[in-house]
Amino acid sequence: MSYRAPVKDMLFDIEHLANIAQIAQMPGFEDAGLETAQAVLEECAKFNEGVVAPLNVEGDRNPSSWKDGQVTTTAGFVQAYKQFAEGGWQGLQHPADFGGQGLPKTIGAACIEMLNSANLSFALCPLLTDGAIEALLTAGSGDLKSVYLEKLVTGEWTGTMNLTEPQAGSDLALVRSRAEPQPDGTYKVFGTKIFITYGEHDMADNIVHLVLARIPGAPEGVKGISLFVVPKFLVNADGSLGARNDVHCVSIEHKLGIKASPTAVLQYGDHGGATGFIVGEENRGLEYMFIMMNAARYAVGVQGIAVAERAYQKAVEYAKDRVQSRPVDGSVNGPAAIIHHPDVRRMLMTMRASTEGCRAMASVAASAYDAAHHHPDAAVRKQNQAFYEFLVPLVKGYSTEMSLEVTSLGVQVHGGMGFIEETGAAQYYRDAKILTIYEGTTAIQANDLVGRKTARDGGQVAQAIAAQIEKTEGELNKRDSVAARAVAKRLAAARKAFLDVVGFVVQQGKASPNAVFAGSVPYLMLAGNLMAGWQLARSLLVAEDLLPKGQDAEFLQAKIATARFYAEHILAKAPGVRDAIVEGAESVTALPLEAF
Amino acid sequence: MSYRAPVKDMLFDIEHLANIAQIAQMPGFEDAGLETAQAVLEECAKFNEGVVAPLNVEGDRNPSSWKDGQVTTTAGFVQAYKQFAEGGWQGLQHPADFGGQGLPKTIGAACIEMLNSANLSFALCPLLTDGAIEALLTAGSGDLKSVYLEKLVTGEWTGTMNLTEPQAGSDLALVRSRAEPQPDGTYKVFGTKIFITYGEHDMADNIVHLVLARIPGAPEGVKGISLFVVPKFLVNADGSLGARNDVHCVSIEHKLGIKASPTAVLQYGDHGGATGFIVGEENRGLEYMFIMMNAARYAVGVQGIAVAERAYQKAVEYAKDRVQSRPVDGSVNGPAAIIHHPDVRRMLMTMRASTEGCRAMASVAASAYDAAHHHPDAAVRKQNQAFYEFLVPLVKGYSTEMSLEVTSLGVQVHGGMGFIEETGAAQYYRDAKILTIYEGTTAIQANDLVGRKTARDGGQVAQAIAAQIEKTEGELNKRDSVAARAVAKRLAAARKAFLDVVGFVVQQGKASPNAVFAGSVPYLMLAGNLMAGWQLARSLLVAEDLLPKGQDAEFLQAKIATARFYAEHILAKAPGVRDAIVEGAESVTALPLEAF
Repeated sequence: MSYRAPVKDMLFDIEHLANIAQIAQMPGFEDAGLETAQAVLEECAKFNEGVVAPLNVEGDRNPSSWKDGQVTTTAGFVQAYKQFAEGGWQGLQHPADFGGQGLPKTIGAACIEMLNSANLSFALCPLLTDGAIEALLTAGSGDLKSVYLEKLVTGEWTGTMNLTEPQAGSDLALVRSRAEPQPDGTYKVFGTKIFITYGEHDMADNIVHLVLARIPGAPEGVKGISLFVVPKFLVNADGSLGARNDVHCVSIEHKLGIKASPTAVLQYGDHGGATGFIVGEENRGLEYMFIMMNAARYAVGVQGIAVAERAYQKAVEYAKDRVQSRPVDGSVNGPAAIIHHPDVRRMLMTMRASTEGCRAMASVAASAYDAAHHHPDAAVRKQNQAFYEFLVPLVKGYSTEMSLEVTSLGVQVHGGMGFIEETGAAQYYRDAKILTIYEGTTAIQANDLVGRKTARDGGQVAQAIAAQIEKTEGELNKRDSVAARAVAKRLAAARKAFLDVVGFVVQQGKASPNAVFAGSVPYLMLAGNLMAGWQLARSLLVAEDLLPKGQDAEFLQAKIATARFYAEHILAKAPGVRDAIVEGAESVTALPLEAF
Repeated sequence: MSYRAPVKDMLFDIEHLANIAQIAQMPGFEDAGLETAQAVLEECAKFNEGVVAPLNVEGDRNPSSWKDGQVTTTAGFVQAYKQFAEGGWQGLQHPADFGGQGLPKTIGAACIEMLNSANLSFALCPLLTDGAIEALLTAGSGDLKSVYLEKLVTGEWTGTMNLTEPQAGSDLALVRSRAEPQPDGTYKVFGTKIFITYGEHDMADNIVHLVLARIPGAPEGVKGISLFVVPKFLVNADGSLGARNDVHCVSIEHKLGIKASPTAVLQYGDHGGATGFIVGEENRGLEYMFIMMNAARYAVGVQGIAVAERAYQKAVEYAKDRVQSRPVDGSVNGPAAIIHHPDVRRMLMTMRASTEGCRAMASVAASAYDAAHHHPDAAVRKQNQAFYEFLVPLVKGYSTEMSLEVTSLGVQVHGGMGFIEETGAAQYYRDAKILTIYEGTTAIQANDLVGRKTARDGGQVAQAIAAQIEKTEGELNKRDSVAARAVAKRLAAARKAFLDVVGFVVQQGKASPNAVFAGSVPYLMLAGNLMAGWQLARSLLVAEDLLPKGQDAEFLQAKIATARFYAEHILAKAPGVRDAIVEGAESVTALPLEAF
């Protein structure tokens, strides 16, 4: 089997870090306890291990192809997607009113990780559909909801996000696509959109494009952008498919990775205008798009965790199998499996600890999301919302940057074989590289962290989180174990480094924007590192508490060892990053432009 | 132009760090002063920019191909290689006695960087030929030398290194190829060799394979391996090509990168045995191969610098061209080229400083090599040899690991366009990944650093280098400039971290090999970081001294800014790495094998 879902680790996080029992007490989540989580995760594992994972290599070797405006996906994708939809997986987290199962994100996130581990390219299609559903749920009219939502939630149709244009990437103020109002209340949409994931494919009967465009006379910049639904096929009053709309896929990209996922150039309105339906109010498109993007950013962070997990599993398998050289400690008298060599262990532990740390962070973030939406107490909802929003750029930015290192180490563990494409380790390295770019580059996440999430409230949320971390340190310091003490030491140092940086960002934000933004990505990396390390520290406390109860000793000991490794080898980087940010800002922008 | 050789930076290092004037006073290097260096580098730049660099993308898109045992290289390679050989570039550093130019490595290394920046795949062929020349010069009989050396030095024929077999990668003790002695003093060679770079191609009339194999009855393990010359075509007494030898290319690999460079599986002896000629004495093959490998390891380090330089140049070009978003400091009122954004600057400065730091380290290492071979005083030769040998695993390991980060940042600067293969940034990311693997993985370099270069002499060479670094700190602290002080601070912290780790390695080496080797790669990274940072600190001193003289102010100011950035953002990582090594060894191997 090429992928084995880490159900046990996921359930540990869901039970002990994300506290599913508490979530199950919130209105609407009455059936969503640990037992449900376990049943869903096991079923999900079976589907992804058996159906989706085997198509991963195939998709890389025989990517989606384009001909005469049609895109044919990799052989097997159509059938697997049918099973995905029929299994109800698209609707997991979506409202029962529209055919979904209404489960918490805490459970859904684990399922999304599995789907992405199994096949990053395949998983992108449902990921974008999720975004379209979120946007319509939030801002769509009753009509739009009734026509589109159930079809999307059941996976019968798929969704896309159309933001990027050749001149407008990170800078959406530059969007030029236009939407001309028609007497019947619809719009005619014109323009070129690029980098549209699953913008055209053969896996569903209809594709629901969510498109940013300007209405003539709208204000310049981001305040003049509206959001439209532009379906590939118009929908008749009875819900059946009508005329082909004027949106056409003129090509797909030749990419470094995620090759099975078609990245389309879409041309709107070349034959008179594509019929579009406005979502919500005019000129509020960016606001709605942010709803999709926040959901998608969290999910892309999970993609990072997912590809890291798969790279880790492959590397472990190879390291246990490949025999080279005698261990330095003489524990084997002759050539041994390379997992006996300390540096191979260091690489595998780095991969494992990074992945588990980010998974724990993402699980806690999902739990905060659930509480923010379902907790009966408004104050608790607000607090959780703030925590979740602080974590989103970290889940996205840190987990995906982490996945670059982990997939690189995955190749490295394989030695020369890793460089041979047939081995498969290189695919993860290639696939992962998009994750730090799309749905907002790491720098864009860092801007969000610095601006909206730190400077805006004067660092209050950040400091509140640091106070929570300090409590965890207190608990660690009460323990006798060497591991707990070692983790407490690194956690405290990282927290102090974090607070210094938060202070720097808050104090310098207005006076020295260049200095603050020079350190924005390092700040994101430090904060993500701290959050992941904190959650592993909490895991250690839980594991130590559970150990005397006698079950799962091997798993719990591994949790402790992994948490300690994380603290000593990854969290230990935090103070150096603090120094670079707080003391080194000037040298980032010191070189004049002409000197480059 | 897709590549512009950094001749000015190279000459700065050659003049001020590597001290070419001193080298030119050594016997045999009388004509090798700064003027020669400048003339050679400028000619070399012209050739590589104009002839070799344009073939880089082509080689990636249309790699070498195999058919019926023949390998056809990318269109244009044969002609470019002809020009390379006719230009005398292969013989640059090789003895005039065999048709070379006998220039110092200090000059040659810069030329090798240019060739590799221009085209990593193309450059591999001469790189391997260099190794074959070194081995024959050191251990070849007079006969072998007279038959093969001039043909190799002039580039008429090319060389290969045949070490790896399917079961023997890093662990050469497992080599199984055999060589049976024949009555005429030759050997019949049998076996399968894999991963043989340019093991078959159409660029030269003959290929001189240097092959590790066992003579029947030889001791087991690495002490029973001998080295053989096995030419593709046997050579007649008059020097003309004779019969085709029994070595055949049965396939070439499908790789992540360096696609134009054919990586061959070679089958020896399927038709009665390949005729081989022993190099030096029986059972000393590994020793001779190490001569080739040390030359090749240094050169692979230079490949890391080379691909980093090219990725940097491409990223700068894009960052100056691509317009997105208003700068945070309001310096431009509207969307600006992304080089105005602090995080883009941080990425470009990281790329630039890393590349310049490693280049400076490599230049100083080359200078030590030249002094080790040409200085009239034996004690000076010995000291330089020790310094060079300490630096080789750092040049190889650190520069190549650095190139992974730099080429990844290169993609990142391009945003979504970076992920599209046509853009070209992704090729560097893919190409670079082999560099931390071949000619000994980073872990193998780190083993060398820990064992032969640190533990064996009780840390003496390492400590002597640290004492030199402390002197540089002293000079920095005498300066008034903020930059010098800032660099001195980070340099001192990194040096102390280094000394702690050296102490740890020396003290724990015997008692706790697992603990020491658990930190071997981090030690290599810390040491490489320190050496590169040290050389940039020296650069800063030189630049500050030269500035008042009024020439090249922009270049010198850039050197100072780059050195400071390196210290504050890269060297600042060193203390955290020290903590991980010295205090975190236990957690690397704490997880039992079964728990993975």
